[in-house]
Amino acid sequence: MSCALPTSSQPVVFITCGDPGGIGPEIVAAAWSNPIFHHQARLRIVGWADTIAQILASSGSVGKKTPAIEIISSDDTRMSTSDRMLIIEPNGGPSDQSPIARVSVEGGRCALMAVDTAIDLVRLGHGQAIVTGPLHKEAIRVAGRDEPGHTEILARACGLTDDAASMMLWLPPDESHDAGLGIVHATLHESLLSAIHSLSIDRIVQAGCHLASFLKAMLDRSPRLAVAALNPHGGEGGLFGDEEQRIIVPAVKRLRKESVELIGPLPADTLFLRASRGEFDGIIAMYHDQGHIPIKLLGMHRAVNITLGLPILRTSVAHGTAFDIAGTDSADPSSMCAAIETAIQLAKSEWPYAVQGRIGARLST
Amino acid sequence: MSCALPTSSQPVVFITCGDPGGIGPEIVAAAWSNPIFHHQARLRIVGWADTIAQILASSGSVGKKTPAIEIISSDDTRMSTSDRMLIIEPNGGPSDQSPIARVSVEGGRCALMAVDTAIDLVRLGHGQAIVTGPLHKEAIRVAGRDEPGHTEILARACGLTDDAASMMLWLPPDESHDAGLGIVHATLHESLLSAIHSLSIDRIVQAGCHLASFLKAMLDRSPRLAVAALNPHGGEGGLFGDEEQRIIVPAVKRLRKESVELIGPLPADTLFLRASRGEFDGIIAMYHDQGHIPIKLLGMHRAVNITLGLPILRTSVAHGTAFDIAGTDSADPSSMCAAIETAIQLAKSEWPYAVQGRIGARLST
Repeated sequence: MSCALPTSSQPVVFITCGDPGGIGPEIVAAAWSNPIFHHQARLRIVGWADTIAQILASSGSVGKKTPAIEIISSDDTRMSTSDRMLIIEPNGGPSDQSPIARVSVEGGRCALMAVDTAIDLVRLGHGQAIVTGPLHKEAIRVAGRDEPGHTEILARACGLTDDAASMMLWLPPDESHDAGLGIVHATLHESLLSAIHSLSIDRIVQAGCHLASFLKAMLDRSPRLAVAALNPHGGEGGLFGDEEQRIIVPAVKRLRKESVELIGPLPADTLFLRASRGEFDGIIAMYHDQGHIPIKLLGMHRAVNITLGLPILRTSVAHGTAFDIAGTDSADPSSMCAAIETAIQLAKSEWPYAVQGRIGARLST
Repeated sequence: MSCALPTSSQPVVFITCGDPGGIGPEIVAAAWSNPIFHHQARLRIVGWADTIAQILASSGSVGKKTPAIEIISSDDTRMSTSDRMLIIEPNGGPSDQSPIARVSVEGGRCALMAVDTAIDLVRLGHGQAIVTGPLHKEAIRVAGRDEPGHTEILARACGLTDDAASMMLWLPPDESHDAGLGIVHATLHESLLSAIHSLSIDRIVQAGCHLASFLKAMLDRSPRLAVAALNPHGGEGGLFGDEEQRIIVPAVKRLRKESVELIGPLPADTLFLRASRGEFDGIIAMYHDQGHIPIKLLGMHRAVNITLGLPILRTSVAHGTAFDIAGTDSADPSSMCAAIETAIQLAKSEWPYAVQGRIGARLST
């Protein structure tokens, strides 16, 4: 058992499986087996050893690669290795085994307890970042919580309102996009009608500031930013809606006053094409699908969900629980791998929102 | 001068340049120079010879390839060739030269007169299809017309209401998608807020029927269809909006009763990814950008806009006037080429909407 002293160059990263009834445990186990991560960080899974072992055994994952499972305490500082999954168990186990491949109260409860525990661990200074597996929003609702998703759970844990955080999808650099592409959402988990009504200058300004701060830290230069229009053809000069003139243009002006340079609003259908060709580093999308449709087409399995604007550093897969293939050992772990890799990279640089909310401590060691 | 007798295997196809201040004349001239089209159809440009000649001369297009320009009468049945643009002039010329690269009354008037004339020519039995260049909606508004675009101009010309037609974007087959992909829109040229309010069972059913008819004719088999959800995560079981349960699910049931098999509503962000992998032949999108964002990412320069549900066969480029590059001879003519190719292909097969509206005659010769 290794007992290497922790150093900030080897940050502790907590990983949750999300809903154990989904593909989370399988993709976490698959990602864990990549030795590169363990050279760069000390990984810990937050969950239940028995649950994870049973799921992996029944899905056939263990047949391919058999990492041992060891329960460790929250203050254990050893290095992690690819052949042994280090697990920190939340206080209190799941009352029942959660069913595979469907929404359940138990699945929702497990996902919630794991992320709550991971947040506490960061709050107590035991680690620097959280990587979350996919939960199902309906499952956390039936489990009795009203947060629409991880982003809001994290915001409330930091003593902030639900809309204090911004949800960004990040496409890491590859051959066609050497700087990466970040798409932040001004509105998110609400009906499209509600999103239009919620859209405001403040929301766009906040999303733009969060995006600019992130990209400055990531790229170490001024990012090239654009904001998408809400309406078709960018509103076509007011023929197809006035939100561009009434909300988005004033938000752009305010962002420029705050030294965030950007262009737009630009018609969304061609904007994402331009971004895909490397013209922009970041885009402010007005609603969930406006950002999600293009990023999933551009790199479904490489995309990472990153929560901006909170003192807690959290990345996540950019896909859902995929109940339809859960337990079949056929899920692609690429997004989980990208989420872990990005979390490690960010944990080693200056997290730009460390002063916000009540969890300011990043590095306890 | 050729005087080959017309045959239905060499249909007459009318091409308009759209707004002459945009890239229309340049891409029409570039597409005209492809000899393959002239082996398959008799092409005619509907516009003004002087205007087109001046634009091509000033943009430098003529320097590369110098097709002659000849004005012909509407009943001239000769074959077209790549070295001579055959032009049918509308009655009444433009009062002034329309300015390049900006919205103008004159540009809007020219675009309207050209498409109105092309419609009349089809109505009189002089040809089988119309291919339209891009117009600017603001220009046709300042020119005094209230149709939001070509689709509505065509619908009204057929004595039908604006919403009788469905706008489909068509991605012709290529190496990654051997059957092509059609995305039809249940709502189109209106603000996003208005689109949500306009969304109805009837609109979705009509779009689905139009799409199914088109794809059956195109593919000669039952198409694989899906309908997109309106809300993020497909409404997440009602948490993010009720339009799925209230409108889309009943529309799917009604479509099945009318023997249109389809699946959905499916979350839009993953649906288009699945379609891009060849899982579907056609998708019903709920609003403009939901269909336009993915199709432009998948093949901006290959996409064709096809009007479904009207007796007039019309295809179009899937992009706008691109005023920013008009007159620079840098526009990509691929979409215009694909629109002409698709129009020729469709003119040779059975147009499934020939019985609707008041322009039933397709082949006069």
